[in-house]
Amino acid sequence: MRYPTVEYERGAVLLLDQTKIPQEVKQLRCADLATLIDAIKRLVVRGAPAIGVAAAHGATLAADLALEKGRDGAQLREELRRALKDLSAARPTAVNLHWAVSRMETLLASLDGAASAEALRDAIAREAAAIHEEDVRLCAEMGAHGARLFPDPCTVLTHCNTGALATVGIGTALGVVYRAVEQGKKVEVYVDETRPLLQGARLNMWELAEHKIPATLICDGAAAWTMRQKHVDLVIVGADRIAANGDVANKIGTYSLAVNARRHGIPFYVAAPYSTLDLSLASGQEIPIEERAAEELTSLRGVEVAPLGAAVFNPAFDLTPAELITGIITERGVFAAPYEKSFRQNYA
Amino acid sequence: MRYPTVEYERGAVLLLDQTKIPQEVKQLRCADLATLIDAIKRLVVRGAPAIGVAAAHGATLAADLALEKGRDGAQLREELRRALKDLSAARPTAVNLHWAVSRMETLLASLDGAASAEALRDAIAREAAAIHEEDVRLCAEMGAHGARLFPDPCTVLTHCNTGALATVGIGTALGVVYRAVEQGKKVEVYVDETRPLLQGARLNMWELAEHKIPATLICDGAAAWTMRQKHVDLVIVGADRIAANGDVANKIGTYSLAVNARRHGIPFYVAAPYSTLDLSLASGQEIPIEERAAEELTSLRGVEVAPLGAAVFNPAFDLTPAELITGIITERGVFAAPYEKSFRQNYA
Repeated sequence: MRYPTVEYERGAVLLLDQTKIPQEVKQLRCADLATLIDAIKRLVVRGAPAIGVAAAHGATLAADLALEKGRDGAQLREELRRALKDLSAARPTAVNLHWAVSRMETLLASLDGAASAEALRDAIAREAAAIHEEDVRLCAEMGAHGARLFPDPCTVLTHCNTGALATVGIGTALGVVYRAVEQGKKVEVYVDETRPLLQGARLNMWELAEHKIPATLICDGAAAWTMRQKHVDLVIVGADRIAANGDVANKIGTYSLAVNARRHGIPFYVAAPYSTLDLSLASGQEIPIEERAAEELTSLRGVEVAPLGAAVFNPAFDLTPAELITGIITERGVFAAPYEKSFRQNYA
Repeated sequence: MRYPTVEYERGAVLLLDQTKIPQEVKQLRCADLATLIDAIKRLVVRGAPAIGVAAAHGATLAADLALEKGRDGAQLREELRRALKDLSAARPTAVNLHWAVSRMETLLASLDGAASAEALRDAIAREAAAIHEEDVRLCAEMGAHGARLFPDPCTVLTHCNTGALATVGIGTALGVVYRAVEQGKKVEVYVDETRPLLQGARLNMWELAEHKIPATLICDGAAAWTMRQKHVDLVIVGADRIAANGDVANKIGTYSLAVNARRHGIPFYVAAPYSTLDLSLASGQEIPIEERAAEELTSLRGVEVAPLGAAVFNPAFDLTPAELITGIITERGVFAAPYEKSFRQNYA
């Protein structure tokens, strides 16, 4: 890709602006926290892992800004705490954001109370870089585990974007596709356009074209019919949060896909790094589901597609019960039901 | 509505231009066959029953144009035959178009070989008017039969437009909603936006607002989650063709809804007049499924939403197997499985 999904340059978090793809491929420079948080809310950066990395770099940004203003250690610590709280509130469902924030908070708590502003800043920046590099590695590992599940040739159906744009590595679900292709497997992808924000049409079709992987766009309503008419070997999606029992919160439309995959006897896989697991929640019922603005459905890039004032139900995510999920691919392997037991064994 | 869906004025078929709703409510005047056929292809008029009525008036238009050119009876008959053939080829899936054309062909064959051009024209115009009036009556009857199935209060989920805009009466599936409301029942409607052409967002939301019926727009991928989160009493949709065994061809996305309705134990009804039945086909497998242009998915009113040249699978319809259908509402009542037996008894 021309630009990385997220990067940090002293004094600014640079985000590849995903609201503009495919028409424009350009970066948004976030030189203050408000701009970064607004960008997370507007989905300039999206994809659970990428949001986590963006928040981590956001902490470095907050530290750099405090240093610039000549704050001492105690003041920097205070400003950082506020920044982490604001970052954490930007979006409710993807747990990776809260995970990254909480990792920073833990780090902060572990540092010497008398540490200088510079020392705090360096520790935060190192942790952000570690979170960033870890995401690259986690993607590679998920890819390796997941690719083993792909027959050769393989026809895959996917929903929402879970590739390089959703992470700072090769991706989660789409990363598995890339790894399978690297292994020499012939992979073909059916891509749900993923309304309302068309991450499939805009982002997956763009990524897959850059990788020269055969991809066919379908509307979300056509997924069941595609399963029936075309030979689909498996469905693979990402996740925004996974509860201890294996229930998965992911982009709206995922649950419908899982129900249809079951009907057609097609394996249904979820790929996500450990930062997506939320073992504090017994089941998906406890995951907060973000509802977004009506305008996401009633207009499209300024074009009205429904009458003004139309009432809208626009949950950004839905829950897929564990019983519909064939396997959850993480960096530690492919987990199957009963999920809780294997998650607790591996991620205690 | 400000304009009827389809009307005939000597020398022109007038169509309420449904590609422009809700931004503009205006008629397209089709003063020649080519304009009318293009309008049918472009979905200026859509909805299986409305297309049938438009084709019937198209026959009158062809007769009027032949008269205007001073054709004699034999010449008019010949021009009419060509016109009917061209009309029939405009769209493949909705059988009502072929039904209306074949009704005209049968009429033509039954008329005296020596009939004058004027006599032929008048017979054709009367038949078109009869088809038109019949559609109004069929809608009212479907409404009466279907409304009995609605509890009070009732929350309904629907897909694509099946109201006044899809017919020249009150509608098929949405007509049932209107009838239930007239009976004093409290009805609330969840409306699938219905990608790619957004008939739900554009047309249902507009119609339901005109009727002041509470309606909530959802993206197609959210239907399953809506079934799970909200209390949905029943799903009701229209049909473009119904095979003898009860398999239903309808707007892409219908099959997915039916699978999800079954999963959630929600009754799934289809409303369609007898002209939608095609008892010559043993099962839905034999129904031709129209595939439409890639641009319907890759751009939206001129805005590109996927990279140029993206491959697209864009079937306009899908098939729902009879076993997923709780009942088929026609003007003669509500049919249940086994469909073939009851269809043949009632429509031999």
